Amino acid sequence: MAKMIVGVDLGGTSIKLALLTNNGEFIDKWEVPTDKSDSGKHIPKTITIAIEDKLKQMDKTKEDIAGIGIGAPGSVRLEDGLIFAAVNLGWVNFPLKDILEKESGIPVIVDNDANIAAVGEMWKGAGNGAKDVVMVTLGTGVGGGVIVNGDVAHGISGSAGEIGHITVQLENGVLCNCGKTGCLETISSATGIARIANEKLQNTTKETVLKEMSNDSPITAKDVFEAYSNGDEVAEEIVNHVMRYLALVLAGVGNTLNPENIIIGGGVSNAGELLLKPLKKYFDEFAFTTVRDSTKLSIAKLGNDAGAIGAAYLVKKFITNEI
Amino acid sequence: MAKMIVGVDLGGTSIKLALLTNNGEFIDKWEVPTDKSDSGKHIPKTITIAIEDKLKQMDKTKEDIAGIGIGAPGSVRLEDGLIFAAVNLGWVNFPLKDILEKESGIPVIVDNDANIAAVGEMWKGAGNGAKDVVMVTLGTGVGGGVIVNGDVAHGISGSAGEIGHITVQLENGVLCNCGKTGCLETISSATGIARIANEKLQNTTKETVLKEMSNDSPITAKDVFEAYSNGDEVAEEIVNHVMRYLALVLAGVGNTLNPENIIIGGGVSNAGELLLKPLKKYFDEFAFTTVRDSTKLSIAKLGNDAGAIGAAYLVKKFITNEI
Repeated sequence: MAKMIVGVDLGGTSIKLALLTNNGEFIDKWEVPTDKSDSGKHIPKTITIAIEDKLKQMDKTKEDIAGIGIGAPGSVRLEDGLIFAAVNLGWVNFPLKDILEKESGIPVIVDNDANIAAVGEMWKGAGNGAKDVVMVTLGTGVGGGVIVNGDVAHGISGSAGEIGHITVQLENGVLCNCGKTGCLETISSATGIARIANEKLQNTTKETVLKEMSNDSPITAKDVFEAYSNGDEVAEEIVNHVMRYLALVLAGVGNTLNPENIIIGGGVSNAGELLLKPLKKYFDEFAFTTVRDSTKLSIAKLGNDAGAIGAAYLVKKFITNEI
Repeated sequence: MAKMIVGVDLGGTSIKLALLTNNGEFIDKWEVPTDKSDSGKHIPKTITIAIEDKLKQMDKTKEDIAGIGIGAPGSVRLEDGLIFAAVNLGWVNFPLKDILEKESGIPVIVDNDANIAAVGEMWKGAGNGAKDVVMVTLGTGVGGGVIVNGDVAHGISGSAGEIGHITVQLENGVLCNCGKTGCLETISSATGIARIANEKLQNTTKETVLKEMSNDSPITAKDVFEAYSNGDEVAEEIVNHVMRYLALVLAGVGNTLNPENIIIGGGVSNAGELLLKPLKKYFDEFAFTTVRDSTKLSIAKLGNDAGAIGAAYLVKKFITNEI
């Protein structure tokens, strides 16, 4: 019987673990808290114990595991699994693969979490097996994973996929967490949408349900899409504004790579068709004709499972060489 | 002794041929006119005869050739060397590889001309062996070639690298040849620079040498850089305007792929440092911090030889499997 695979999605608050079949189906999922003390040096030990405990419960051993695939929140060098920097965990130049392999005695492959989610969607989700896929994650920030010819693009310093920091406003852009102004992230993240909505409420004289929604607490991105789905005109203006800039960037990425799929994930993507319809309209306006006609936009399908599934794919690709 | 390689750069006016060593050094270069009659159906025959004549002169045979690498001006499917469309040659869904292999009796590999030039620069030019390289060609239009993990990105319809058609002006953009408005090509191509300069001359009251330069014939991109090198203020404004938009796109591509090198080629790149200095200034402003610090901008080194050298590389990679 083919060995099982461990998928790990490493976050600043919790470590999500999953045990998967060789074919990427879930056997079990569980999580443990992230111990960030001492600059995150205990994390490999935490992961090892979590896996050992699970194997014991199942009456299995390390021999039953083909490898551990990990998505880490930072820039990664694939070849040796070095984390250049993972600010949330306190890691700088942290040789995660080496340490975890020594600790656990199981082969390890590491990649950036957004990249691994993109790989998961490529394999089992909205990418549907395509070899050229771009995934953009709209959450607190805007992340990205880029797959070209079936392989994740990392670039020379592991910063490929920083789509959220593409400049979209040349004049009067808002300051981004990255230190620049006018980044896509300042507009199309959940945070950006909420900011734009709250600003708009201060400056509009139009009737809008957003006004009542803002009585108790500031408007959220979810509120905006909810109001939009009920035909609210001000919410529609906000959604159009946000999707126009997202489309501008995705058309640019589309013209650069002509991927088969551009997949929208993250919390904001729960808006589904409400998001996709205006996004496609503007994408068609900005994309080169052939790209417009061949690159498909779609909503991510795997949600939080994308990371573990992507990690399993990387184990099959780089550890057991089955792909 | 290792076999020789034929590199072909297929243009609308002439077909440039080269005989190279297995290591990508030139043995001979020559050209023949492009016969576009009958929707370009005679082109494979023309190429075959040109090669046969050359071999005869050198007292060599087809057995001495490892393969033919061809750069074609259109979108290409690498796997089977199908040209989706090459408008200048009259080809639509033209199976170039199949026809030329049958005609010549020599193995053939085909790719888009901008991609092949990028490969040439990656191998022997400004890319200096890097595995992630983007090349942008500033000529009559703006072309692009994208290399990720050592392989050319084609995308699902062969339109990867259409960097010239990334939208940079959301409002009041000029109509592009592609049918959209506000594309980079309308600004940063030789044509775009000339257009902007001639418009500016109509609307400026400032003293500028461009006025005298325009007495006999309309201002060209070359005139603009010449005036700029002599400290002309209006020319400087034009160069800054053009380089700011080019930098915006290259920083976006940089954030997406974090390539080791972004190489500027084409006629406009003859401006060298005059172009590179303002371009770098704006790139540093628009690129994500890590990308700014790790992705290098440089001028192409191989000029018109890039195509033949890139073609030779593809023969080594896909026909003789030496790379």
